[in-house]
Amino acid sequence: MSSVIPVLEVFGPTIQGEGAVIGQKTMFVRTGGCDYRCSWCDSAFTWDGTGKSEALTAEEIIERLDTLAPASYGHVTISGGNPLLHKGIGQLVNLLQARGIQTAVETQGTFWQDWLKQIDAVTISPKPPSSGMKTNWETLNKCLTQLDTRQVSLKVVVFNKTDYRFAKEVHHRFPAYEFYLQVGNEDPTTADQQKLMQDLLQQYEQLIDWTMNDKEMNRVRVLPQLHTLLWGNKRGV
Amino acid sequence: MSSVIPVLEVFGPTIQGEGAVIGQKTMFVRTGGCDYRCSWCDSAFTWDGTGKSEALTAEEIIERLDTLAPASYGHVTISGGNPLLHKGIGQLVNLLQARGIQTAVETQGTFWQDWLKQIDAVTISPKPPSSGMKTNWETLNKCLTQLDTRQVSLKVVVFNKTDYRFAKEVHHRFPAYEFYLQVGNEDPTTADQQKLMQDLLQQYEQLIDWTMNDKEMNRVRVLPQLHTLLWGNKRGV
Ligand code: SF4
Ligand code: SF4
Repeated sequence: MSSVIPVLEVFGPTIQGEGAVIGQKTMFVRTGGCDYRCSWCDSAFTWDGTGKSEALTAEEIIERLDTLAPASYGHVTISGGNPLLHKGIGQLVNLLQARGIQTAVETQGTFWQDWLKQIDAVTISPKPPSSGMKTNWETLNKCLTQLDTRQVSLKVVVFNKTDYRFAKEVHHRFPAYEFYLQVGNEDPTTADQQKLMQDLLQQYEQLIDWTMNDKEMNRVRVLPQLHTLLWGNKRGV
Repeated sequence: MSSVIPVLEVFGPTIQGEGAVIGQKTMFVRTGGCDYRCSWCDSAFTWDGTGKSEALTAEEIIERLDTLAPASYGHVTISGGNPLLHKGIGQLVNLLQARGIQTAVETQGTFWQDWLKQIDAVTISPKPPSSGMKTNWETLNKCLTQLDTRQVSLKVVVFNKTDYRFAKEVHHRFPAYEFYLQVGNEDPTTADQQKLMQDLLQQYEQLIDWTMNDKEMNRVRVLPQLHTLLWGNKRGV
């Protein structure tokens, strides 16, 4: 009998829009609850009470995935909220791996769970100053050093020059890890998709420009959020 | 004394717009000459006589890179044309690696050169039917099997449903390799960047749709060309 996991949404198949496995065909399991309160959180419904989570066992989550995409997925992304709040995800990961399904997790790295070691692609994304959150370097370090460098990447979302400087600090503190810069979505609620797309491309170009002209940022990757370019702020795609 | 390499352009730093190292800050070295004549080739100036190549030694290419980006690059992408036509690239790769610089190569995989084994990220992109070219599976197989599966990825550009079926064939013949589907650029000469961007996003959505609904294509990644979304058909960015 597994312990339950608070689940906000299960959807897919769709593409992973960001980070190290960008473009990957994947299913999403979004868990509820977060220890952070980022000012620009695009998943605030996972923790601000506007979204209702269901308490599901690992077996029930697998059932949902199988119903959505019968025999049609080979990759599952667990995101949040902060999935590291939930010990019960370990059982989900075991079941997926027993079926040969690859896994990815996205978290800010503020907690540790042993199941993280089993994940194929872990994205740790410390939050920059514009989020209003403060990174505990020691906790982050503890999380990172328990993982294999080939399994984990660091990602920082950048909204402005101060965030960019923070991103540099993260990269220089942990140079052994693959590093991703990502354009922030300034307007996670607008329905004007055309304008959002153009703004995002413009900010992406700006971020590229900063990085290309920075001799201290050579071994990095700069990416947009593909799902936002394609579908704007729509949820569940 | 190294042998010379026909070089069409050396530029950067910019981002890699496609494939396995999408988003990577990189320099580009584009070599001249191709054994293919793809109908939609976006680098036709490398082989159709409209671009003039210079015969440069590896040392001279490094000089160009250093002048463009003094101490400001950690990654070099060698593209073409077909870089596998040139044995002399081996010396360039040696020099770059001696300086700790990572390398990537893009080719259709129709030839073999020993220096390919030294490349960090090899993208082999067999050309689909819409190109007018025909893949020799034996030659492709010979190229692939000499490389480490972690070092190489397969990429197929897709313009239509026939191309998509070809992509599936490639993926199923070589399931051990990471596989990328990429949206084709239907209009590699237009200057109407706005329209190009919208067309590309629409075609990208179409390609995602095919892939998401295809139970035989679960372990794949679907990507656009980021540089085309950002800068249209402009060269040297
Ligand atoms: S860590 Fe992530 S889920 Fe939590 S508040 Fe910040 S952006 Fe939202
Ligand atoms: S293989 Fe590449 S460079 Fe050669 S013709 Fe085809 S698209 Fe152009």
